Amino acid sequence: MSVIEISDGDDERLADYMRLRDVNLRKRLETEHGLFMAEGEKVIRRALRAGYLPRSLLLTRRRIATLGDVVEAVDAPTYLVTEETARRTVGFDLHRGALASFHRRALPDVVTVLRGARNVVVLEDVVDHTNVGAIFRSAAGLGVDAVVLAPRCADPLYRRAVKVSMGAVFTLPYARLTDWYAGLRTLREQGFTLLALTPDPTAPTLGRSLATAGPDNRHALLLGTEGDGLSSRWLSWADVCVRIPMAQREVDSLNVTAAAAIACYELAQAGG
Amino acid sequence: MSVIEISDGDDERLADYMRLRDVNLRKRLETEHGLFMAEGEKVIRRALRAGYLPRSLLLTRRRIATLGDVVEAVDAPTYLVTEETARRTVGFDLHRGALASFHRRALPDVVTVLRGARNVVVLEDVVDHTNVGAIFRSAAGLGVDAVVLAPRCADPLYRRAVKVSMGAVFTLPYARLTDWYAGLRTLREQGFTLLALTPDPTAPTLGRSLATAGPDNRHALLLGTEGDGLSSRWLSWADVCVRIPMAQREVDSLNVTAAAAIACYELAQAGG
Ligand SMILES: C[S@@+](CC[C@H](N)C(=O)[O-])C[C@H]1O[C@@H](n2cnc3c(N)ncnc32)[C@H](O)[C@@H]1O
Ligand SMILES: C[S@@+](CC[C@H](N)C(=O)[O-])C[C@H]1O[C@@H](n2cnc3c(N)ncnc32)[C@H](O)[C@@H]1O
Repeated sequence: MSVIEISDGDDERLADYMRLRDVNLRKRLETEHGLFMAEGEKVIRRALRAGYLPRSLLLTRRRIATLGDVVEAVDAPTYLVTEETARRTVGFDLHRGALASFHRRALPDVVTVLRGARNVVVLEDVVDHTNVGAIFRSAAGLGVDAVVLAPRCADPLYRRAVKVSMGAVFTLPYARLTDWYAGLRTLREQGFTLLALTPDPTAPTLGRSLATAGPDNRHALLLGTEGDGLSSRWLSWADVCVRIPMAQREVDSLNVTAAAAIACYELAQAGG
Repeated sequence: MSVIEISDGDDERLADYMRLRDVNLRKRLETEHGLFMAEGEKVIRRALRAGYLPRSLLLTRRRIATLGDVVEAVDAPTYLVTEETARRTVGFDLHRGALASFHRRALPDVVTVLRGARNVVVLEDVVDHTNVGAIFRSAAGLGVDAVVLAPRCADPLYRRAVKVSMGAVFTLPYARLTDWYAGLRTLREQGFTLLALTPDPTAPTLGRSLATAGPDNRHALLLGTEGDGLSSRWLSWADVCVRIPMAQREVDSLNVTAAAAIACYELAQAGG
């Protein structure tokens, strides 16, 4: 609604946008204020379309035209700044020239998210925001219905994850387990077959395992952390461990986002 | 061989390691001096194993023990610095505590790289180093034999690409086209079937196209830039455009690394 010009990079009203690359500061600030950042016109529009409420927008003059309708429509102030002020506040060049701060919503619980879902992805302690964002994009694009996160998995609404997901974190339902140790029991109880993805060369292949699964199965794809992979606890809870066959080329595992993409694709191919 | 303690972050001998996050500075410096950076013990060892010659190593005291054999073996100085000096020079906290500067080698030409290859990945103007690195890791891990880069595709030996690839950029042969416009002709002449990967919903699916291809075909998977995808020039040069089917979920394309992983996987499944 209101457009307010601000020339002082330290103005309190810009507090939501402070030092966007300082991960620790941002985590604290975003948790305490219950906010998240959306960057770029496309992603901002997707957050709005998904029903998130903006706290404010931060635009450079160049961007005010392309987002004019949004500025008009939202019930939150738009702060208009120079590129220099933006840089001082956020800590880098704001090439896309558009940021918005949104209110977070309470996450649904795991059972609610699982209820309507046929196939889901479950992430155990994936710590890199880029990986989390990329996995959401692939999962949504390839027809998975929901994502379940272990307690220590990185936040899908962190700026970098939001951006890499192209906004898929807004539309793909997700929930977080509160209990790592027994968390997979909930998925079992809801009737999911748990497939643990592992590069272990002794595991049967993903393709074969899906080919022999009943067409009505509901599948949960478990993916592990970047360094060590799935914990032995989760591996032992799975119904079956499956591998994506690797060539013998000094590469002993795939990036977790590559493994996720392939697994979601195979699931879709196997009849969704 | 020699270990030299350096306490001044501006010491000329540390010039190779200057401001590692300043992409423009680094590109210029690395081109002019014909060097590249390897980060972390694993990646440094892989570069050495692949036959790259080090210019120097930069280690903090914590790391000197784990890399002791390398320090001994190489014919280049090791600079020993405090974490504080390292931070001053490179511009961030060097958590992994180990860097090495290597000499680049002349790239082989495209025909040489294609000669022994059955299946290859061809990247048109993929500009993000993380994406290039991730694609090399997937391609190597899933059995693709080589990568061909368009003239403007990002450098696989850039630090971030090296790191994300886990060193696959050292072992997977690659070459760069000098001519974007007619560059694909070389691949055709070498007998490759060119598959252009596109989210275009009217294209036939990747799975079906591979199923109908002869088992002896040599395939080139063409992947496009992050924003706009493949150029119309390259799309028109391809033997066939193929798509990875997408769910209708407001996500209209996959990340190029996800698409690459799925395509390499399908190629391997189709009989390699
Ligand atoms: C980088 S990998 C972890 C590697 C770890 N060393 C291990 O053995 O699991 C991260 C995750 O990606 C998935 N992944 C990677 N490569 C895979 C493969 N070839 N088959 C199945 N899953 C894979 C697994 O879920 C793994 O936990
Ligand atoms: C982010 S996409 C580019 C999207 C662009 N709007 C387009 O229409 O191509 C980058 C590259 O990933 C590949 N890609 C992404 N999604 C794909 C899909 N569903 N099927 C096949 N290739 C895909 C293509 O090679 C594309 O050029």
